[in-house]
Amino acid sequence: MSVITIERKVLEKNDQIAGRNRRLFSDRGIFALNLVSSPGAGKTSLLERTIRELQGSMKIAVIEGDVQTDLDAQRVAKYGVPVIQIVTLGGCHLEAGLVQDALGNLDLTGVDLLFIENVGNLVCPANYDLGEAIKVVILSTTEGDDKPLKYPAMFLNSSVLIVNKTDLVPYVNCDLNVLKGNALRVNPSLKIFETSCFTGAGIPEWCDWLRRKDASGQ
Amino acid sequence: MSVITIERKVLEKNDQIAGRNRRLFSDRGIFALNLVSSPGAGKTSLLERTIRELQGSMKIAVIEGDVQTDLDAQRVAKYGVPVIQIVTLGGCHLEAGLVQDALGNLDLTGVDLLFIENVGNLVCPANYDLGEAIKVVILSTTEGDDKPLKYPAMFLNSSVLIVNKTDLVPYVNCDLNVLKGNALRVNPSLKIFETSCFTGAGIPEWCDWLRRKDASGQ
Repeated sequence: MSVITIERKVLEKNDQIAGRNRRLFSDRGIFALNLVSSPGAGKTSLLERTIRELQGSMKIAVIEGDVQTDLDAQRVAKYGVPVIQIVTLGGCHLEAGLVQDALGNLDLTGVDLLFIENVGNLVCPANYDLGEAIKVVILSTTEGDDKPLKYPAMFLNSSVLIVNKTDLVPYVNCDLNVLKGNALRVNPSLKIFETSCFTGAGIPEWCDWLRRKDASGQ
Repeated sequence: MSVITIERKVLEKNDQIAGRNRRLFSDRGIFALNLVSSPGAGKTSLLERTIRELQGSMKIAVIEGDVQTDLDAQRVAKYGVPVIQIVTLGGCHLEAGLVQDALGNLDLTGVDLLFIENVGNLVCPANYDLGEAIKVVILSTTEGDDKPLKYPAMFLNSSVLIVNKTDLVPYVNCDLNVLKGNALRVNPSLKIFETSCFTGAGIPEWCDWLRRKDASGQ
């Protein structure tokens, strides 16, 4: 039995469980988003800004994934939304089974939006379906405008690109037009938002899009 | 045969080849460094600055690792040093066998320093020995000061931490003392440098250290 065969079996098993998660989200009318990025691109900051903007109008729940620590869950819990932390203990990505287990411990009553914050890794999480409606890839301007070409799978498998930390553009070597052009070369159907979680720029547009997605039944 | 057993066999095989690479470096008096970081932390920029600083006094060769594209090898080749690109085609880390193959195609005559730039990934490359003398982890200040706690394996397995993009500290939410404290909590024997590849700050200190390492026969 080769390693390739083992890997295929792991992915098949993952996809079966992801299918079950997806049916659960569909049955309950939950729009589930899988947030992926490099470490430190701003996934948790985006979540905090998004919760603040949507609180009162939409009910949000969060699953946090991390290699170690529950620091992110602590940050999100301050906003009073249901949140559960998955610690992968060295694992480089979330898998559908971990999300399934987390869902069993999360109060989903009335939830409109479920954010699943993946492990900070621009490679491995691309291959693991968690049952989400869409993957949202967050890329910080500080990472440089060549990253969509260098890590294409993540941009190909995502529906939305959020270019974050736009407030830092004057200080870094990143051309936003080149960045967006590279991303669209990899995936021409990407919906792109530009945000700064520091100033709040772009957050209303992103949240309006989430409201419309939810209102349209996804 | 379980997945765990397969993984152990893959790592054992990797470690055997890493041992062979290490003997080759030792026989030729080459100091080999495995550069690891998140995407966009500045591994290639650090390499460019380091080559410029050391050119003339030390002979340098480079192995570039990337998921896709040879953009980094092109950047490094401009400085006239021997460089070879490994494209992993989706693979999330370099392995010793890939480095062994690359070494067969690289002119190592008189080389003092070999830099192996790993795939941008703060998780997976931590577990794969390439035969290097040391791992050097590069962390950008833009990633935040909590990262050593959240991705501890990489900081535990590295001998040197380079805190890069220090010029951006005034604009980001990163306390350098907290960052260094967190890193030393994970690995008290880490040697830490602070650099800006934009201004050049800290590059002479890092290069002096490399010169001394080489002069002392590592």
